[in-house]
Amino acid sequence: MVRRQKMENIRFSDDGRSVVIIDQTLLPRSETERRLTEPGEMFEAIASLRVRGAPAIGIFAAYCLSALAFGSEETETDRLLSQLRRQAEYLNSARPTAVNLSWALKRMTACADSAASGSLSELKKALRAEAEAIRAEDIAMCLAISENGLSLVRDGDGILTHCNAGPLATSKYGTALGPILLGRERGIGFRVFSDETRPLLQGARLTSFELYNAGVDVTLICDNMAASLMKKGLVQAVFVGCDRVANNGDAANKIGTLGVAVLAKHFGVPFYVLGPTSTIDVNCATGAEINIELRDPEEIKTKFYREPVAPEGVKCWNPAFDVTDAELITAIVTDKGIFYPPFDFSAVLEKGER
Amino acid sequence: MVRRQKMENIRFSDDGRSVVIIDQTLLPRSETERRLTEPGEMFEAIASLRVRGAPAIGIFAAYCLSALAFGSEETETDRLLSQLRRQAEYLNSARPTAVNLSWALKRMTACADSAASGSLSELKKALRAEAEAIRAEDIAMCLAISENGLSLVRDGDGILTHCNAGPLATSKYGTALGPILLGRERGIGFRVFSDETRPLLQGARLTSFELYNAGVDVTLICDNMAASLMKKGLVQAVFVGCDRVANNGDAANKIGTLGVAVLAKHFGVPFYVLGPTSTIDVNCATGAEINIELRDPEEIKTKFYREPVAPEGVKCWNPAFDVTDAELITAIVTDKGIFYPPFDFSAVLEKGER
Repeated sequence: MVRRQKMENIRFSDDGRSVVIIDQTLLPRSETERRLTEPGEMFEAIASLRVRGAPAIGIFAAYCLSALAFGSEETETDRLLSQLRRQAEYLNSARPTAVNLSWALKRMTACADSAASGSLSELKKALRAEAEAIRAEDIAMCLAISENGLSLVRDGDGILTHCNAGPLATSKYGTALGPILLGRERGIGFRVFSDETRPLLQGARLTSFELYNAGVDVTLICDNMAASLMKKGLVQAVFVGCDRVANNGDAANKIGTLGVAVLAKHFGVPFYVLGPTSTIDVNCATGAEINIELRDPEEIKTKFYREPVAPEGVKCWNPAFDVTDAELITAIVTDKGIFYPPFDFSAVLEKGER
Repeated sequence: MVRRQKMENIRFSDDGRSVVIIDQTLLPRSETERRLTEPGEMFEAIASLRVRGAPAIGIFAAYCLSALAFGSEETETDRLLSQLRRQAEYLNSARPTAVNLSWALKRMTACADSAASGSLSELKKALRAEAEAIRAEDIAMCLAISENGLSLVRDGDGILTHCNAGPLATSKYGTALGPILLGRERGIGFRVFSDETRPLLQGARLTSFELYNAGVDVTLICDNMAASLMKKGLVQAVFVGCDRVANNGDAANKIGTLGVAVLAKHFGVPFYVLGPTSTIDVNCATGAEINIELRDPEEIKTKFYREPVAPEGVKCWNPAFDVTDAELITAIVTDKGIFYPPFDFSAVLEKGER
C-alpha cells in the first residue's frame, strides 16, 4: 500500500505569529502538528528533536524569527532588532553541531538589519520573505542534489542510508533520500536499506516511514547489520546527509556514519555525502573543530523502551554525531555539483554563498 | 554499589528431572528462575533465548538430556536410548549456528550408547555425570581462556566487547568477559565499553549487568558509537566470543561482530575472538559453510519498545549472527592457547577434542 505524506513539516500559522511543525518524535505512530509561539517552545522543539535534520532546523529557525517579529509587542525598530538578536542567540544555543542553524539565524538578523530603515511593518514583511526564500532555496537545492545524486546510481542498485535525510529533515525530496524519491518519480527503482539509527531510531521511525509511504522498496536493519549486507554484495552505494562539512571535506553527521564509511571502504562500496552548500563551513578547517553534541544517557537506557534496558547505575556515552574523515568519502554531492577529493571548498565556494 | 550474582545460570532440580535456569530474557529487571521438564519447554528456552551463549547452550542441552533420562518412564534400555536420540535431535534443531549445541548432544548420546550395557539406573547416572563433566570442563576452559586473554592486555586498557560472553553465556568467568573478571579479582582494572547489541540488547541487558555487578568500570554505548570510540583512541583491544569457528579461523558470532572487526582493523586496534576449543568446528572449512540463523523481524520492529518503531508493512532483515573473516582477526584465544593467523585448526586439534 502506498500512502502519501500530506502535511508540510514546517509552516506558518495563518496569523504568521507561530510556526506549526509535524512533531517528529511522535512519528510514525501519529502525524501530530504542534504550534509554537514562544521562544522557549521553539528552543525545546529543536533540543528535543521535534524538528530535526540540519536543513529543516535552518528553515525552522528562520520561520521562528519571522514569527517572533510578527508576535512582538515592540513598537520601536531598535528595540525590536535587539530583541530579535537576543532571540536568535538563544535559539542558536539549542543544538551545537549543525551549521544550518547559525547560518539561517545570521541571515535573518542580517535581513532585519538591512530592512531597519523602513517601517516596522516593512521589516516584518522582509523577515517573512527571507524565511520563505530560505525554504524555497532549500527546495531548489534539494532538487539539484537529487539530480546530482541520481547520476551516481543505476536502476536496481542497493542503497544503504543512515539516519534520516528525507523531506522531513529538509523541505522537499531531502538530501540523502532525494535521489531515491526523484528516481521513484521517474520509474527508477532501488532496493533501499535503512539503518534504524540508535538511539533515537530516526531510520526506523522516519526514513522507513517516508520511503514506505512513497512506495519505495525499503528494508529496515539494525545498525550493526550493515557489514553483513555489504559482505553479501547487496549494497552498491551509501547515501548519507550531513550536519556540517569542514573545508577539507570531513563531514559531521548522525552518530554511526563514520562506522558505515569505514565499512564501505573495506567492502569497496562508494560512500556519498549529500547536502546543500549551506552545510559546508569553509571557516572550519577540519572535522576536529566541529563541536559534537553529547546527549542524555537516558536516550540509550530508558527512552523508547517499555522498561530500562540496563542497570540504573551503568554509565552511558551518547554522542549525537560523529565526523567521517574526508579520506573515507567517495564524493560530496551538493546543489552546486559533485565534489571529489581532495576537498578544498574555500577555493570553489564564494564567501557569500554560506 | 557492587552487587554479586548469586544464582547459578543453569542447574538441576533436586530430583534431577528438571533443569532450572535464570531466564535471561527478563534480565536485568528481574532475576527469575524457570524450571524446565518437558522437551518442548527446553526447546523453547533455547529458541527464545531464555538460555543463550554458545557454551551455555551446550551445557544446558547436556543437562536437558540427563533430566529427560531421569524423567523418562521407559523401562527398557533400547527404548530409552532411541527416545533420547529423538529428543537430542529435536533440541538440536532449536538453533542452527552455535556448534556447542550439537557438540554437547552428540557427546551425551555417545555417553548413553557406551553405558547401554549396564542397568538403566547406571545409564542415567552416567548421563548426569557426563553433563556435570561438560559443565566442569567449561569452567576450567573459561579459566584457561581468561588467563590467556589477560596476557594480551594491560592495566588501564580500554576494552570494547559486543553482545554477551560472560558467566551467563558460559559457566564461570565467561570467554570474552573472562579476562576482565579475572583481572578484577587480581586488581587489574580496565575501562570496558559494552555495545548494546541490537536487536535483543544482550550487551545492555546482560554484559553491562554482569560487569556492573562485579564492580568493573563499564560504559554502555549503542553499536554505532564504536567507531567514534576507536577514533578517539579509547579502545586498546576488542574481546568477543564466538558461536562457531571454521577451520580457517572465520568466526561466527552475534550480528555486528564483523562490523566491529572491520573498524578495529581500520583503527589499528587488536581484535581478539575468545572461545573454548569446543567452538572450533574443524569439519567446517570456511565461514561460508556456517548456517546463519534468520530471526523474527518483530524483534527489530516491535519487541522491547513501548510501541512499534516502524510502519507495520516495512520489511526487516534480521540475521542473528555474522561471520568475521579470519583476515580481520588478530588472534583466537582458547583454553589450549592463543592461535595467530594463518589459522588451520585441523593441524593442531585432535579429532577427539571436538
